[in-house]
Amino acid sequence: MLGQRAATFGRFFRQKRNFNKLAGAGTDYGHDERNYSYYKYAYIGGAATVGLLGYKSLFRTAKLDHAHEDKSVKKLENLPMYKQEEVKKHGKDADRIWVTYKDGVYDVTDFISMHPGGDKILLAAGAAVDPFWALYSQHKTAEVLEILEGYRIGRLDVKDVPKAEPDAFSNDPERHPALLVRNAKPFNAESPPSLLTDHFYTPNELFFVRNHLPVPDIKTEDHRLTVETLNGKTIDLSVDELKKKYKSYTIGSVIQCAGNRRADMNQYKKVQGLMWEGTAISNAEWTGVRLRDILADAGIDVFDEKIKHVHFEGSDLDPTGTPYGASIPMEKARGNEVLVAYHMNGVDIPRDHGAPLRVIVPGNVGARQVKWLRRIIVSEKESDSHWQQKDYRAFSPAVNMGDELKWDTVPSIQEYPVQCAICTPAPNTKVDRDDGTVDISGYAWSGGGRGIIRIEISVDGGETWSSCEMEQEEKQDVEHMYAWTLFKAEVKIPPGVKEFNIIAKAVDRSYNTQPETASGIWNVRGLIHNAWHRVPIIVKD
Amino acid sequence: MLGQRAATFGRFFRQKRNFNKLAGAGTDYGHDERNYSYYKYAYIGGAATVGLLGYKSLFRTAKLDHAHEDKSVKKLENLPMYKQEEVKKHGKDADRIWVTYKDGVYDVTDFISMHPGGDKILLAAGAAVDPFWALYSQHKTAEVLEILEGYRIGRLDVKDVPKAEPDAFSNDPERHPALLVRNAKPFNAESPPSLLTDHFYTPNELFFVRNHLPVPDIKTEDHRLTVETLNGKTIDLSVDELKKKYKSYTIGSVIQCAGNRRADMNQYKKVQGLMWEGTAISNAEWTGVRLRDILADAGIDVFDEKIKHVHFEGSDLDPTGTPYGASIPMEKARGNEVLVAYHMNGVDIPRDHGAPLRVIVPGNVGARQVKWLRRIIVSEKESDSHWQQKDYRAFSPAVNMGDELKWDTVPSIQEYPVQCAICTPAPNTKVDRDDGTVDISGYAWSGGGRGIIRIEISVDGGETWSSCEMEQEEKQDVEHMYAWTLFKAEVKIPPGVKEFNIIAKAVDRSYNTQPETASGIWNVRGLIHNAWHRVPIIVKD
Repeated sequence: MLGQRAATFGRFFRQKRNFNKLAGAGTDYGHDERNYSYYKYAYIGGAATVGLLGYKSLFRTAKLDHAHEDKSVKKLENLPMYKQEEVKKHGKDADRIWVTYKDGVYDVTDFISMHPGGDKILLAAGAAVDPFWALYSQHKTAEVLEILEGYRIGRLDVKDVPKAEPDAFSNDPERHPALLVRNAKPFNAESPPSLLTDHFYTPNELFFVRNHLPVPDIKTEDHRLTVETLNGKTIDLSVDELKKKYKSYTIGSVIQCAGNRRADMNQYKKVQGLMWEGTAISNAEWTGVRLRDILADAGIDVFDEKIKHVHFEGSDLDPTGTPYGASIPMEKARGNEVLVAYHMNGVDIPRDHGAPLRVIVPGNVGARQVKWLRRIIVSEKESDSHWQQKDYRAFSPAVNMGDELKWDTVPSIQEYPVQCAICTPAPNTKVDRDDGTVDISGYAWSGGGRGIIRIEISVDGGETWSSCEMEQEEKQDVEHMYAWTLFKAEVKIPPGVKEFNIIAKAVDRSYNTQPETASGIWNVRGLIHNAWHRVPIIVKD
Repeated sequence: MLGQRAATFGRFFRQKRNFNKLAGAGTDYGHDERNYSYYKYAYIGGAATVGLLGYKSLFRTAKLDHAHEDKSVKKLENLPMYKQEEVKKHGKDADRIWVTYKDGVYDVTDFISMHPGGDKILLAAGAAVDPFWALYSQHKTAEVLEILEGYRIGRLDVKDVPKAEPDAFSNDPERHPALLVRNAKPFNAESPPSLLTDHFYTPNELFFVRNHLPVPDIKTEDHRLTVETLNGKTIDLSVDELKKKYKSYTIGSVIQCAGNRRADMNQYKKVQGLMWEGTAISNAEWTGVRLRDILADAGIDVFDEKIKHVHFEGSDLDPTGTPYGASIPMEKARGNEVLVAYHMNGVDIPRDHGAPLRVIVPGNVGARQVKWLRRIIVSEKESDSHWQQKDYRAFSPAVNMGDELKWDTVPSIQEYPVQCAICTPAPNTKVDRDDGTVDISGYAWSGGGRGIIRIEISVDGGETWSSCEMEQEEKQDVEHMYAWTLFKAEVKIPPGVKEFNIIAKAVDRSYNTQPETASGIWNVRGLIHNAWHRVPIIVKD
């Protein structure tokens, strides 16, 4: 079934996303009336302006199907009240799938096969659809609500939901339920791979989150950004002053955790760290002012050879009151692309992503893009923060678990090497041989602004390859590409096999490539895993 | 035997090269009287100020050995006259090894095992030692000459050496006989791997040569460099004016052919092109003026957004009169590191390397570093030269031999990805198990100024790794490393095997790594092969 849906998804992709010559590449892809028949029942997630017609057609079908049951005229007062924990039992692996919307409880089991977005509806199984509908707004119509009401089985009792004990993290923000939580406190969660390639710019709610400490709760009007020169002189700016004083720029730029795909490396050989799978990475449009302009305004000569590094300090504090910190080389800091950002995808940066100010260092690892930015310091030395000196450095495979870690023998990670991963289908997806093909989607990206020049797929272990279609930001050229490249391909199911691996790999503008396996890049901290991505697929005959 | 020598070489390396904290890193490594005993009979090549004592001790031994034959008192007039072609028959595979020095002919067969430089003497077998002695000047002493005279068997008849037919290449310069010629016309030759890691800066005579056309013969005083602006305005400069007008800079920088290691890729699967092995790469110190300064002087605003590329035109012409040409992006051209050079390792650039002017584009592929530079043009577009548009672009492995080559679907190669190769021992070297270890040496380098942060060796196919000692230029930091990294290691011969592979691979400052095999990077033109380098070794029990 997923194979079928995937194929439809592929067709949708081709028609609506204008791959390889994308203009704008936002969430609004426009639509073309002539092609409606193709995707009437196809996937609608991620394309805010299309799919409504799909739902409308479906609406007619659904009413017809359920008319004889007369569910649509059920009286609300006769329906039972369910507690949240009861709903939770009807998750994606249950016999009957329930969801809630506002205070309604719905058994949608019989609707799943008709859902235009396919089994993505299961992301909300046993829970609320509200946060998903907030992202895929085509649901919010009278027709869709009427369909939903046809499946109502009761009302949600929202009283008596047990509250968590207060702790340092109690004031963390609400998060979208589709995020895949790898650690709750501090909050670390991946973007859901099944939704990630729907959007060229990841919606803020689905953007992966990597926090090291509790999330600060900052009133924008109270926030000050301090800039400190070599002589110890400082200037400080409110967010408002910063916006007024300097020209604003917008840049599409990826943030990727240095530990992305660590779980993969751990399968090769055990490593230490948070077991990120393949989506500790997201892409957004950031708006802010150039770091260089702020430095110049503080009287700092950005070509001063004594200044080697620029440090950033966050407002997030550890229990001793020490803030998160990191630094980047001055040569990077004075580039056009480095911003002190206040907008993420056109709105104020959300709390989890650094409200009100975050430094964006396009092409570098996430750890240097300090959130809740409160202080900038120029220096002859790198930041002496724990995260610059004793973390985010990748050792040699000659250094084994239990060996002494000599941190000063390896440089701090700044630019990322070329990365590529398949997002759909998921590992161990079962496909029908009769489908003939499997549609895949994924992302690729490289550090230092090195654009992706191609992505290749193999289903025979790397003996032969085929090229993928790529979606890139038109504003960025191959020498300055900080946003990611999305890709898709339709791969033939190889004959005579019960299972096979889909392998994806990318090449960047400097012809950097990825290693076949983790053999040569394995490191005790499981950082920067960029071996060929392999997704095992099971073939049903 | 080689194993033994290699071990000695390794010890020499450790004591005299001051690896990892090298000051100056030139050819003069100083010497330390206290350690002389260690390398008295050790390898002397490459260390101009050491080894003499080794030769002096040897001199005494040699005189003793040969005294009873009284060869040293042979009368020259009684000795036979040999033609060059007769000498040639006594090459490295002959029963008796002959060499010449000036007009003397010597049978050195019995001396080889005593030669302080080991079997490197065989590089001159059947030919003249003169060009090697020019590089390793410790030979030029009365004592060494006296040893040599002990082996004299005759005089060289230099008359009647057949001259080649005149053609477009007849006026090409003389070349060092140690160069490994891959193509004679145009001249393309690798550096000899057994000598390459002797020198941090490759001696000009041993620097690999990649010519596309006959070598121009330019009188420096007549040469003009023309610079053309967007409006078609030009300035022109003599070499002397250029030297006087602009500040000079010196930079250590590698030149590597995009086809280096193509023969290796060809073994994976057939490719087209010159079958370079692993030493189409060399490293020199270049002195010249900044390209940026010349452009500014010509009235060009290097931040003008209309100017995207800077073109270079050589003085070497194809039969239609079209010059060799290439271009680089303006962003690179305005960097500190790009020079119009007139000196190579402190002397005028030799003819084969671009006399009198060559553009040096540190971190980029050799093909863009145009020799015999006569014209600079700023432009909105890339150079339309054949070598920019229809060559030096690496296709996907999905494009096979015989497929149409759509050149505009792949970008021109500029920066090089991370590269690494073992230079010694040679492939299929036989080692004695009793030696226990094998000493290896090699080079690593990456494009874009990304310094090498480590080099690892495996003798078990990549299961386990050990780190190598590295020699780097102290003046260059890891963010701006354009010179190469030499490395050495002592690897244990694995137990119970008749043969094994030594694998070497490197990691650059952006944590770029090399792929295990050519599987994912194979391309029809065999360009940029940077898979793990494997050297098979045979173990004699």
